[in-house]
Amino acid sequence: MNIEGKAYRTIWFEKNSVKIIDQTKLPHQLIIKNLLTVKDSINAIKTMEVRGAPLIGATAAYGLVLSIIENKNQSFLKKSSKDLIASRPTAINLEWAVDRMMKKISGVNSNDILKVALEEAKIIVEEDVEFSKNIGLNGLKIIEEIYNKKKDTVNILTHCNAGWLATIDWGTATSPIYHAHKKGIKLHVWVDETRPRNQGANLTSYELNEEGIPNTIIADNTGGILMQKGQVDMCIVGTDRTLSNGDVCNKIGTYLKALAAKDNNVPFYVALPSSTIDWSIKDPKDIPIEERDPVELSHIEGLDENNKLQKVLIYPHKSKALNLAFDITPSKLITGLITEKGICKASEKGLKELFK
Amino acid sequence: MNIEGKAYRTIWFEKNSVKIIDQTKLPHQLIIKNLLTVKDSINAIKTMEVRGAPLIGATAAYGLVLSIIENKNQSFLKKSSKDLIASRPTAINLEWAVDRMMKKISGVNSNDILKVALEEAKIIVEEDVEFSKNIGLNGLKIIEEIYNKKKDTVNILTHCNAGWLATIDWGTATSPIYHAHKKGIKLHVWVDETRPRNQGANLTSYELNEEGIPNTIIADNTGGILMQKGQVDMCIVGTDRTLSNGDVCNKIGTYLKALAAKDNNVPFYVALPSSTIDWSIKDPKDIPIEERDPVELSHIEGLDENNKLQKVLIYPHKSKALNLAFDITPSKLITGLITEKGICKASEKGLKELFK
Repeated sequence: MNIEGKAYRTIWFEKNSVKIIDQTKLPHQLIIKNLLTVKDSINAIKTMEVRGAPLIGATAAYGLVLSIIENKNQSFLKKSSKDLIASRPTAINLEWAVDRMMKKISGVNSNDILKVALEEAKIIVEEDVEFSKNIGLNGLKIIEEIYNKKKDTVNILTHCNAGWLATIDWGTATSPIYHAHKKGIKLHVWVDETRPRNQGANLTSYELNEEGIPNTIIADNTGGILMQKGQVDMCIVGTDRTLSNGDVCNKIGTYLKALAAKDNNVPFYVALPSSTIDWSIKDPKDIPIEERDPVELSHIEGLDENNKLQKVLIYPHKSKALNLAFDITPSKLITGLITEKGICKASEKGLKELFK
Repeated sequence: MNIEGKAYRTIWFEKNSVKIIDQTKLPHQLIIKNLLTVKDSINAIKTMEVRGAPLIGATAAYGLVLSIIENKNQSFLKKSSKDLIASRPTAINLEWAVDRMMKKISGVNSNDILKVALEEAKIIVEEDVEFSKNIGLNGLKIIEEIYNKKKDTVNILTHCNAGWLATIDWGTATSPIYHAHKKGIKLHVWVDETRPRNQGANLTSYELNEEGIPNTIIADNTGGILMQKGQVDMCIVGTDRTLSNGDVCNKIGTYLKALAAKDNNVPFYVALPSSTIDWSIKDPKDIPIEERDPVELSHIEGLDENNKLQKVLIYPHKSKALNLAFDITPSKLITGLITEKGICKASEKGLKELFK
């Protein structure tokens, strides 16, 4: 998609290095960063220079390519794959991408291994673009239906960033929005700020602005009253791990919006590529919920009056904080799952009909 | 209650002026401010140097006293009372306090009017302290019951600041907590940050710290997963306007926590003095929901690395924001109302049994 009128992807391979947009610097600075080693890749995932389940999967795949460039030794590659998987615990794509890469290069001789790995990473990336595009075309039908009934601007609420910046292109939750916009459907997006890291404000609003889609940032507390007042026609969010029973583990706060949607009869959709489905976990209690540094809550960065980036402490100096990154939205609150293969019920039956 | 070991109230009258703690400067600076005119009082309410339904009621009462000191002319007093009521739209106490003061001074001759007004303002203030104290004693029973069953630390979640800083002393939602703490019950409070103005972090966590009560600040998105994980034993919040049917209009985001509490069988209590009850409105749609300046969302103030207060822009410069200040929690989600007269069901019947 576009930034300042120029088409970008979030990650690409160029001259033995991996290029990423450093997302910790958005919206204030657009910085393209070089990853040269697997350590660089792990660091980019940990510090959230890249984030979003599909994008961290792709970054891990390219991370293994960089690892091969560094050292083709099997034990080094195994350590790399282990460290990549451990870099963030909740999103399933990370493990999925690393396992797929390791399987592909298993037994390949050292002359071919780089070529094979790079090809596979590129296939993962292109598949994700294709998946995101198809999620958009499938979700578009839901938006069109609301628009045809309402004959006025469709108000969509989204949480966090499941935009193109969370994937390679198009996004998951935003893909139906981009496709509807391209078709000329009048849209307005309520963007949850998404504390503590404000990916809604910093990334979703930013990317919607750059594509010319009307949007308004709201505090995470606001979705409820907007639904009470009838100002939300539908919600679409992404997911970091989709359980086989249809429960969804996504950015913290998703669950609260799903509860409000249910209470106000607002359709609540989750958009996902099949790579986020975890067929192995049936009990949401078994999902590791990432706990991040409380400094992400107590400190915040922004532009001062001289347009200089400043990080400020916003909490009382004696206060403690807890920073949990995800919550679980039970399937009973979800109207449907929008996938690359179609829309299904948030249930084992629904998912299996599409994917097994 | 205490700040740095010294007992304070939030407002007091001294030498023909009204003293307040400037709450926009907390937690980083403790500044006592003088209000000398009714205009100062209106400004303090509008800019939220004082906030919280009971405290803005008291500030308005003292505002009328300052108005009388300035000019005893009836038309001036009428204009003052109108302007005070208009200074913030949602909390009912403002209107309640002004009406009570105007009734009291109606027909009083100009020699006595200042004395009568000052006495009435002081009665309003002392009544509020007494109400807050009794809310605490009534709410204490609920906490004791949980503690006696659990025999371990009671985890209480609260939203925004319904602490002593929102009243004159004790607070509403915090009063049961302070009373339980004084009785030696082990407590821990989850403090919702409460975007956009962060009154939870800035004020509630601050005042709990100063009273030595363990507390942890969380993003507003976090309460849901904590309840899913069984880490919340009860919620207590305040209210800016309580409808006669038991619906509660409180700081934006309250509704979302109440939904999560219901979904996880966590008791959800609202603490209130009877001055917040609006017997006249039956439909929550008739409550004016205050819309504040979006700059409260897009900009935030904190301490930079040199310990200097800095205001920074945290949103993309092209983005719009909407800043609604309140939402409605329907009575069906509320376990009970904790008032100065006892605990009742959140219903017309419940309220009438205590108050009519």
